Amino acid sequence: MSLIVQKFGGTSVADTDRIRAVAEHVVRTRRQGNEVVVVVSAMGKSTDDLLRLANDLHEEPPPRELDMLLTAGERISMSLLCIAISRLGEPSASFTGSQAGILTDTSHGKARILEVRADRLRESLAGGQIVVVAGFQGVSTTRDITTLGRGGSDTTAVALAAALKADVCEIYTDVAGVYTADPRVVPAARKLHAVSYEEMLEMAATGGRVLALRSVEFARNHGVALHVRSSFTWEPGTWVTEEEATMEQAIISAVTHDTSEAKVTITRVPDKPGIAARLFRALADANVNVDMIVQNVSTGGTTDISFTVPKSDLPASQGVTEALAHEIGAEAVTHDDGIARLSLVGAGMKSHPGVAARMFEVLADEGLNIEMISTSSIRISCVVRADQVERGVQALHATFDLDAAPV
Amino acid sequence: MSLIVQKFGGTSVADTDRIRAVAEHVVRTRRQGNEVVVVVSAMGKSTDDLLRLANDLHEEPPPRELDMLLTAGERISMSLLCIAISRLGEPSASFTGSQAGILTDTSHGKARILEVRADRLRESLAGGQIVVVAGFQGVSTTRDITTLGRGGSDTTAVALAAALKADVCEIYTDVAGVYTADPRVVPAARKLHAVSYEEMLEMAATGGRVLALRSVEFARNHGVALHVRSSFTWEPGTWVTEEEATMEQAIISAVTHDTSEAKVTITRVPDKPGIAARLFRALADANVNVDMIVQNVSTGGTTDISFTVPKSDLPASQGVTEALAHEIGAEAVTHDDGIARLSLVGAGMKSHPGVAARMFEVLADEGLNIEMISTSSIRISCVVRADQVERGVQALHATFDLDAAPV
Repeated sequence: MSLIVQKFGGTSVADTDRIRAVAEHVVRTRRQGNEVVVVVSAMGKSTDDLLRLANDLHEEPPPRELDMLLTAGERISMSLLCIAISRLGEPSASFTGSQAGILTDTSHGKARILEVRADRLRESLAGGQIVVVAGFQGVSTTRDITTLGRGGSDTTAVALAAALKADVCEIYTDVAGVYTADPRVVPAARKLHAVSYEEMLEMAATGGRVLALRSVEFARNHGVALHVRSSFTWEPGTWVTEEEATMEQAIISAVTHDTSEAKVTITRVPDKPGIAARLFRALADANVNVDMIVQNVSTGGTTDISFTVPKSDLPASQGVTEALAHEIGAEAVTHDDGIARLSLVGAGMKSHPGVAARMFEVLADEGLNIEMISTSSIRISCVVRADQVERGVQALHATFDLDAAPV
Repeated sequence: MSLIVQKFGGTSVADTDRIRAVAEHVVRTRRQGNEVVVVVSAMGKSTDDLLRLANDLHEEPPPRELDMLLTAGERISMSLLCIAISRLGEPSASFTGSQAGILTDTSHGKARILEVRADRLRESLAGGQIVVVAGFQGVSTTRDITTLGRGGSDTTAVALAAALKADVCEIYTDVAGVYTADPRVVPAARKLHAVSYEEMLEMAATGGRVLALRSVEFARNHGVALHVRSSFTWEPGTWVTEEEATMEQAIISAVTHDTSEAKVTITRVPDKPGIAARLFRALADANVNVDMIVQNVSTGGTTDISFTVPKSDLPASQGVTEALAHEIGAEAVTHDDGIARLSLVGAGMKSHPGVAARMFEVLADEGLNIEMISTSSIRISCVVRADQVERGVQALHATFDLDAAPV
């Protein structure tokens, strides 16, 4: 008997017809002899509806109360799912984050899970019930209701899978799995059978929207096997697991891109120790989420520093950067929100030199100018013009043989 | 400094405009130097909407899951109210029934409150916060979420007022208070300044729909002063308190009526000990809620037994009654759903003989035939034809001087 955690996102439980379909799948899994723990998000856009009510009353609702409000969404979807499961004749029970023992810190709106005390879920499973848990929520050390922030339901599912030592954590979503590129940009993109945690992390960080970074990190740290698949076709999707040394690696697994960031550049920064530290400390204190950072070699005692931030953080980062530029005697601060980030991700890259050179050649052949470069051992990212990025994705996808049959 | 519990029903928090108005009233009460505990119902018809979703999935949803589902409604209204209060600059905190320490038995859908462990609310009040609590819900001895059934939010408010030793429990509703008769039937009906618990209980039991019987019983048993008032005009309403011996009592406080019941009669029942007990035990076992019972004097060794039940219980009670009639050799079972119950309620009745006689004369003058009679020390009820009941209410209201100025 396997223990399977199944997580269903908002579109998978958007209405009673979809909930019925999910219930059938859950019951089928149970009747195949598995123990099943289900994690659900709020129905469709219901969280947005609640948020709209809150903002109608207050531009900045108190975070404790906002969390109390938003957690009503999963309460509704999870109890409706149990009702649908009951209709099919299987016993089940729903549990809030608090009842499921998901203990968090006190950071409302973006709480971190401290511990999972899953005794109650174990009892329920032992009693033969299908367990249904509200995603995205927990209870803090001060007994207040908290939410886990973006991708919170995925994190709930992975945390429960880790705590219960589940055999697999299935993430059901509205896409069929993880693709070699965004299929809207590359029609020939194909679904990957498996990727490693590291590849998935790099993909999540560079524009692959299927899984939240945080839940993949959690899965890697606790060795939870993830299976990303569709709640519309129910077909097998993409496995995210430990990289197997014996497995022949594809050099490149995917081409990702991201147009959600902007670039800030400070020119002619005096090249002295501690300057970069002051800049990025000031940005961190202003809650700006800095992504890529590139510093050029020093010429004539000064250097240029460029970094990318989410477009929504651009006003804050400009303010901080301009104040500091003045203080340290830098020349100027410029910003650019017409950029895109283009990345190649692949665990096989480690043992295949020359991937970066090939990537730059392809982009040059396509007439794309590279404005920034950053790399990790299994990823190469280039910042290019946003209006040229799709051309770059298509060319790279073809060049690195990603249109071929699955490995 | 007074401690005031304020309860707001669904129509009082039906949308964000109404929630804002409630927040303003709560904040005003707080700024007048009072400690305030607020109990809210779910917004408008949102509980019905949730119920509809549940019934779309299952004709008989499992009670535990239905309670989990329905409690989402108060979670939404209470957090929105705190958000609106915060906008007005006052600190507040919302608490679920479970967080508020409302411990119930395990009867899902109609749980009874066993105990209120209000330590957390006391801490919140001591910290200067306005406390907002979800009505209608609690947590059971087996740590499952329960709901209290019809009138549940009133019961929550009264239970908290008792536990916190509040000075008053204000029940805000869409009517201005308790009236001498239904104003839709008697335009000259007037709002009562005060009624005793006993009168309120009799009125609630005989058609006065303002307060649920159960919450009035709870208030009487714990000596909680109730103040029923309007959340639209915010004017003083009707006080429900202990009867004061020194107070000059009105003989009659109100005329109530109720058309929601039907009558069942068994004719020529053998007049032997134990027959009535068998009948009403069988009805109780079938969950039929019997109201009035009348047994005629025995003639020729048989008697007739009539009783009233909610119209919704009529099919069940006919089944039970016909089976038993056959068994015990009674003649026949008839039923009648064209009846209404007409009642006079007044604590002064105890010391004024002749009220019943005067009532019967008035009804006779109006040409109303009396089909059943039952009395308590402060109430007289007659069953009459449903299509004549409004005429009876109007005549009695005029005869007993209820159109006069408030006492």
